[in-house]
Amino acid sequence: MTRHSIYQGKVVDLGRETVLLPNGQNITLEIVRHPGGAAVLALDDAERVCVLHQYRHAVGGWLWELPAGKLDPGEPPLTTAQRELAEEAGVRAQQWESLGTMVSTPGFCDEVIHLFIARQLSAVPLRREHDEVMQVFWWTAQELRVRLAQGEVRDAKTLVALYRWMLGSVQNGGQPVE
Amino acid sequence: MTRHSIYQGKVVDLGRETVLLPNGQNITLEIVRHPGGAAVLALDDAERVCVLHQYRHAVGGWLWELPAGKLDPGEPPLTTAQRELAEEAGVRAQQWESLGTMVSTPGFCDEVIHLFIARQLSAVPLRREHDEVMQVFWWTAQELRVRLAQGEVRDAKTLVALYRWMLGSVQNGGQPVE
Repeated sequence: MTRHSIYQGKVVDLGRETVLLPNGQNITLEIVRHPGGAAVLALDDAERVCVLHQYRHAVGGWLWELPAGKLDPGEPPLTTAQRELAEEAGVRAQQWESLGTMVSTPGFCDEVIHLFIARQLSAVPLRREHDEVMQVFWWTAQELRVRLAQGEVRDAKTLVALYRWMLGSVQNGGQPVE
Repeated sequence: MTRHSIYQGKVVDLGRETVLLPNGQNITLEIVRHPGGAAVLALDDAERVCVLHQYRHAVGGWLWELPAGKLDPGEPPLTTAQRELAEEAGVRAQQWESLGTMVSTPGFCDEVIHLFIARQLSAVPLRREHDEVMQVFWWTAQELRVRLAQGEVRDAKTLVALYRWMLGSVQNGGQPVE
């Protein structure tokens, strides 16, 4: 595989990659290399879910999303998850479980998102970036079901984490992570 | 909003966009503009699910995915879904329902994926692109549950469509679409 860099920005690292496919074809693909991310489904003692109403310029409006963010270079995904939950939602959690991983858009990007459930919450100060426009909400199970049924939740990582939790389909059997 | 184009390729259209956020901040973001896509959860008469085992260079290996593809300019998502189901899986369907939409990666890309359920299937000839490396499988409900529980399904659109179907969380109430 050879890679020719097209653009290296703050978020997007775009290149043209020439590869030999398993079918013997040589092709050139436009690939965005991404550091990966982590997202957190945080549940309070009443089993309410922490969601952010976040302005996303890329999609032209507001989305309901779980607290989430990009991995810093070499950062363990759990550390990212803990940092983003604190900075974006003002929440710290004592108990963490893995909800597995997902890939966002494998046609042109290598982004892997690590999903977690967090419980036993306490408040910490918010520390948002100047370009983060969001408000914190706490949804009951009933509100969550209505929002999902009405198609109001559209963000992929948020949907995958919520659905996995609702289905009890936790990949590592719900074992705590350190 | 002003946009400065960085690169326009076959798949990726990358630009730098300067925008006024709702909090009054002016910022510049790297944004990939994408035509959007459609994906199909096709069920045969035994309720087996059609899945593709597809080689994805971006993520360095094989993924389990629903048949899916990009919208051609101006193309209705249902037309895309029908074309991709035929070309990639060799399947035509008589009955179609919407499974709603999702956004893949709203931090830097505007891609919206339209999800469908297809039933009453019949066979048509495969017509794959030279760069599409994939095999068709049909999973029973039991095999699907095992694959999901073991974390073998990692593609976001595939997970969202499967989970929505399993939860009966169809956004338009499962109404047929034309």
